[in-house]
Parts: sequence; structure tokens; C-alpha cells
Amino acid sequence: MAFFPASLENLIDKFASLPGVGKKSAQRLAFHILALSDAEALSFANAITDAKRSVHRCSICQNLTEGETCAICQSDRRDRSTICVVSEPRDVLSIERGHEYNGTYHVLHGVLSPMSHIGPDDIHIKELLQRVASDEVQEVIMATNPDTEGEATAMYISRLLKPFNIRVTRLAYGIPVGSNLEFADDATLNRALEGRTEM
Amino acid sequence: MAFFPASLENLIDKFASLPGVGKKSAQRLAFHILALSDAEALSFANAITDAKRSVHRCSICQNLTEGETCAICQSDRRDRSTICVVSEPRDVLSIERGHEYNGTYHVLHGVLSPMSHIGPDDIHIKELLQRVASDEVQEVIMATNPDTEGEATAMYISRLLKPFNIRVTRLAYGIPVGSNLEFADDATLNRALEGRTEM
Repeated sequence: MAFFPASLENLIDKFASLPGVGKKSAQRLAFHILALSDAEALSFANAITDAKRSVHRCSICQNLTEGETCAICQSDRRDRSTICVVSEPRDVLSIERGHEYNGTYHVLHGVLSPMSHIGPDDIHIKELLQRVASDEVQEVIMATNPDTEGEATAMYISRLLKPFNIRVTRLAYGIPVGSNLEFADDATLNRALEGRTEM
Repeated sequence: MAFFPASLENLIDKFASLPGVGKKSAQRLAFHILALSDAEALSFANAITDAKRSVHRCSICQNLTEGETCAICQSDRRDRSTICVVSEPRDVLSIERGHEYNGTYHVLHGVLSPMSHIGPDDIHIKELLQRVASDEVQEVIMATNPDTEGEATAMYISRLLKPFNIRVTRLAYGIPVGSNLEFADDATLNRALEGRTEM
């Protein structure tokens, strides 16, 4: 005998299919939905279909947008001579939060991963090369994650960019600001030593 | 400048409004939705509206159901002379999981809570009294949670049931099966002592 009505079980299953949501949490979320007003529940459902329908990739930088191009690519206050290459849209958010960077972005939507059969044609490398070839680009900053795959992807792309004779840089490695040397891992500490600067 | 398109921000906000989902998790969930196929995203949205539209309360026990009455109230294999009173639909699931109980349920949808202004008229006590008055009920088992509010609610209802001259019982308190005395709190241990049984 099913304990919950079929449509409730179905909603629980949907929530449970989300990353990081277990069966118990999914139940709690589904009960929360049932406790919403009809209008609120409908608005939640519409938010899903609206986002799915409206959001696509910027034709220039591949970041998520509702227009043909994204707000950053459209802005005339951004420096188009510098492109910061990131693997995911959320990484754009992280860098924008610093209010330091004023160039444009290029979102790869993934990293090279032979283990997961993700090759150069599966992420937006070709579009980056096209931008570098056609635009007034002077520097590409590789800002993929500092893990094995992010590292390999940065390395691979930097080699492809060699012929263009532009500056290709990588985010600095080092100890995080405000952290404690005691808790820094060896690899980070070594990189911080290698990259030491004059005071 | 907004970093994400409006419809994506909206979806993130919706997820962030769910209990136990923070801003970061909400972002991850929203990105997951965008990565779904159109059909999968639509099916998620439909699951919300379907559940909200189809699920309502059983006219007898107030448990969640899609029919006029729930499967347990409809079943002729359940003993209608015993009603187990719980505060939430998920508690029915917990008790059913034990495969021990064969009576019916009554779901209060809440507990008495003067702090949150939830009084006797805000939870389904009246419907319980009507069942006890009209049905062949011989025993009501109070299975609200063993916390202050659940306790008070059980006490309140048991007093209302006095005039009906039926058996009113409460789930036993004691040490959980398979646990360790060392980790049992004092209140539980005292209750386990009080409720000790002959071997």
C-alpha cells in the first residue's frame, strides 16, 4: 500500500532527484510545497519553466542570459581587451563579487575530463579562439579551478592561444587572505613560496 | 548589475525559500534545473502543480490523499475500533513502516502551540471527537511527538475524550531499541525506569 498519494510520491521523487537532496529532505520540501497557497505553488512551477525557457547562452561569452548577449558583453564600461576564462557561470559571479575585474568573460561550461569523456569539442573552446582571433583581445586570464582538470584545461587552452601572440595568464596560487599558515596544505604553501613577491 | 538573468535569479529565490535550502544550494539546484532537458524540467514543474491540485485531506482521518477518503480508511483489513492520533502525515508513514499497527489514523495537522497562536480550533480535534462519537471506536492512541507541545496536545485531547468512556493510551517512553544507556538523556532514562515491565 502506498503511504502517500501518487502525485505526492511523484513530487517527492522529483525533489529527491536534485543534487544533494535525500529522501527525507525531499519529503520535507514536498510537504512545504503542499502547504503553500495555490498561487505560490503555481509561481514556483512557473519559475522552473520560465527559467528553462528564457535562459540560454550569450552568443559572445556563453554566460547565461535571457537576451542575445549578456549584460557584461553589452556593457560599454567593460574592457573588451581582456577575457577571463571560467568553467561555470557561477564562477563569473564569484569574480564579479570582488568588484576588481573589469574585463569580459568566457564560460567554457565544463572542463576537459578524459575520465568523463569530455574533450575539447564538448566545452566552448572553439568560440574562445574565434573571439581571440577576431577581437581586439590582448590578454586571456585562465581562471579555471585549481584542481587537476581545471589545471589541465588551462594548460591545454594556453597552448592553443600561443600562436595569437597575446598575454595568457593564470590566477595566482597562494595562501588565502585571512587564513592561517598552520592550516595551509603543502602544495598551496609551496606555490605561495614559488610565487613570493617583493615587499 | 545583476549577475544572473532575472528568470534564473527568480528560480534561485524560489529554491532558497524552501526550508533548509541556503543561497548556495539554491543556486546549485537552479543550475541543475537548467541542465535538465525541456521535457524533464516541464515534468518537474508539472509535479508541483499536480501534487498541489490533486492532494487534499481524507474526509475521515485528514491524512493526505487524492480520493475522497484515503487508502487506509477505505481498506476493510484495517481495524476501525482503534484510532492512532498523529500530528503530521509523515508520522503515519513512520508508524506504517513498523508493519505492527493495524488500526486507522487521525492526522491533526499540527499541535497546540500557544506561542504560535495555534489553538484547538486550528488543528483537527473536532473531527476526531466526531469520529469517536459516531464510530465503533474503542481505543485512541495518542502518538504526538514526545516534546512539550506534543505532550500538551495529547493531554488536552485525552481530557476531551474522557466522557466517551473509551480507552485512551499514549505511546510508551523508554530507551530506544539498539541504543546505549550511556547516551540516553536523564528524562528518557527516568521514564524507562517508571515504565519498567516484568521479564
